Amino acid sequence: MLEDKSVGLTPLAQLGEFGLIDRLTRNFNPSATGLKVGPGDDCAVWEKNEKEFYLASTDVLAEGIHFDLSYCPLKHLGYKAIAVNISDICAMNGQAWGILVSIGFSNRFSVEALDELYAGIHAACLKYNVLLLGGDTSTSVQGLFISVTILGSVSKDKLTLRSGAKKNDLICVSGDLGASYAGLKILQREKSVFLENPSVQPDLVGFEYVVERQLKPEPRADIIEALSQANIIPSSMIDISDGLSGDLTHICQASNSGALIYQDKLPVDHETEKVAEEFTHTGHTYALNGGEDYELLFTVGLNSFEKVKDIPGVKIIGHMQEAASGIQLETSLGERIDLKPNSWNHFVS
Amino acid sequence: MLEDKSVGLTPLAQLGEFGLIDRLTRNFNPSATGLKVGPGDDCAVWEKNEKEFYLASTDVLAEGIHFDLSYCPLKHLGYKAIAVNISDICAMNGQAWGILVSIGFSNRFSVEALDELYAGIHAACLKYNVLLLGGDTSTSVQGLFISVTILGSVSKDKLTLRSGAKKNDLICVSGDLGASYAGLKILQREKSVFLENPSVQPDLVGFEYVVERQLKPEPRADIIEALSQANIIPSSMIDISDGLSGDLTHICQASNSGALIYQDKLPVDHETEKVAEEFTHTGHTYALNGGEDYELLFTVGLNSFEKVKDIPGVKIIGHMQEAASGIQLETSLGERIDLKPNSWNHFVS
Repeated sequence: MLEDKSVGLTPLAQLGEFGLIDRLTRNFNPSATGLKVGPGDDCAVWEKNEKEFYLASTDVLAEGIHFDLSYCPLKHLGYKAIAVNISDICAMNGQAWGILVSIGFSNRFSVEALDELYAGIHAACLKYNVLLLGGDTSTSVQGLFISVTILGSVSKDKLTLRSGAKKNDLICVSGDLGASYAGLKILQREKSVFLENPSVQPDLVGFEYVVERQLKPEPRADIIEALSQANIIPSSMIDISDGLSGDLTHICQASNSGALIYQDKLPVDHETEKVAEEFTHTGHTYALNGGEDYELLFTVGLNSFEKVKDIPGVKIIGHMQEAASGIQLETSLGERIDLKPNSWNHFVS
Repeated sequence: MLEDKSVGLTPLAQLGEFGLIDRLTRNFNPSATGLKVGPGDDCAVWEKNEKEFYLASTDVLAEGIHFDLSYCPLKHLGYKAIAVNISDICAMNGQAWGILVSIGFSNRFSVEALDELYAGIHAACLKYNVLLLGGDTSTSVQGLFISVTILGSVSKDKLTLRSGAKKNDLICVSGDLGASYAGLKILQREKSVFLENPSVQPDLVGFEYVVERQLKPEPRADIIEALSQANIIPSSMIDISDGLSGDLTHICQASNSGALIYQDKLPVDHETEKVAEEFTHTGHTYALNGGEDYELLFTVGLNSFEKVKDIPGVKIIGHMQEAASGIQLETSLGERIDLKPNSWNHFVS
């Protein structure tokens, strides 16, 4: 009966995901005593004890939207569902502790298929020392979805929000960017080839790195540990799930700042460059807009320059600036262009 | 590609939901220090502070499986999604504190439809004093699903598991049973009438109570408060989501006990009886097997008899017995029959 009433209603694409979340949640928590951060950052934050805060976040992966089982093995999918949630805890400078996993699946899934999914969940829990606290299973009319809630904690003095970046703070990223999207492009191409001619086996030789980045991302708990070892507490942090461009915008909006990053400093793997070229794109476009990297994007005060530049796998790509100067990319030619968050929007794609 | 490999695989109906959860989760938590209860009770339980435990649980509602939007208004659905999770916290004798809500929805849903859903979520949060901690939204290929994770707490001395029932303990239930299933039967009948002749408006007169029980269940936080006021700590407790028969079996299995309940003592509303008769069933069959009542089923020691019998809305329906005596129902004619958990199994329905 819903369909009959749709005249004059607002399509979701008009709001986008973040506009929608803001609209749906703005009336909640009228008397939120004890809740330090509610919806809007990577995690909710509240008092654990004198020294620590609790952290909680939730992420859902839906078949046909976030994954395609024709090229995403179930074990990898289970691993990824946990990894992306751990990444949200990392984004607060915290440690993951426990998860709750709900799955819905249609009757085309066998017990053995779910065993595979849970083998991946188990592998991620073991690797990152995370407990399974609980869960729920349900059938679904069509397709598979996985909803994971994660709990973690962070020392009060290390808690890092999106909102703390200041003018002149250095903008840093871990790892390299755009590889996950490059992997997705390769997998989608090989699927098309397979559908046209099922006797052709997928050829992923030379693309192992980017394909792995897409299918089995790793949260950067190692970077959180390295920052701690180096006595660096970032002024702001987020994990890159929507693409550098979109996630840097989140930091700038929350911190009421602008940013300037340099195209030449964006870390892009040569495999990512190769894939981008094959699709007549560029590596830095993938880095800016690809998404699903699950690298950490963070800012540090200038006084941390000496310490941060020596952390393996971390690269300084720019600095924060006045909000009025906007969010800009300086190209290789020295031209400054406004960065528009062109991140992956699953409401319109 | 999954479908091609299905020969020789195990269909899910063979295991059932609880067998599946057990199979999927048995290898987890090899070194679960700090986790008092993991998967298997209504909630996970771990240390909060000297006096309290934390509680966490998760429940998913999927369109076409748990609800039918042709007769379930979105606002009611949002309310119910929160209510059933609060009920899990009540089942541990605890208080709910915060929720995380993930939803997936197809493009047939407008922003206004999601507003309605969140209005129901909001109403339940306000009524039960629960905070919205976070959430995620996603599109889906087909249909709507809602996954809610709830956090709460309980005084250490009040924590009530499924596993504490002892021989001769009194078996108690709150409210009345089977009404939710009766409401579902009425709604399904009116839907059939509507589909055959769309000009006929649904006639719910005389069935308001059972329909409300199906569409807008209330968690029994009031009973938890009444137990506290009466200084009663149940020896075991569960909320009735699968039906009395199935949920009593969960208590018996966890407590390694049998149980004897009396047909004449089962609380069944006259509207439930009326619906059951219209469908040539009986009210006590709905009470035993209907499910989705979200009433509390608990046991107390014999020494609590005087205190528990005076709590409004609580009824003593039997007592625990030796495991060897099984789980039995004594009928109105004095015959004892073995109760088989014939609870609603959405893997085979």
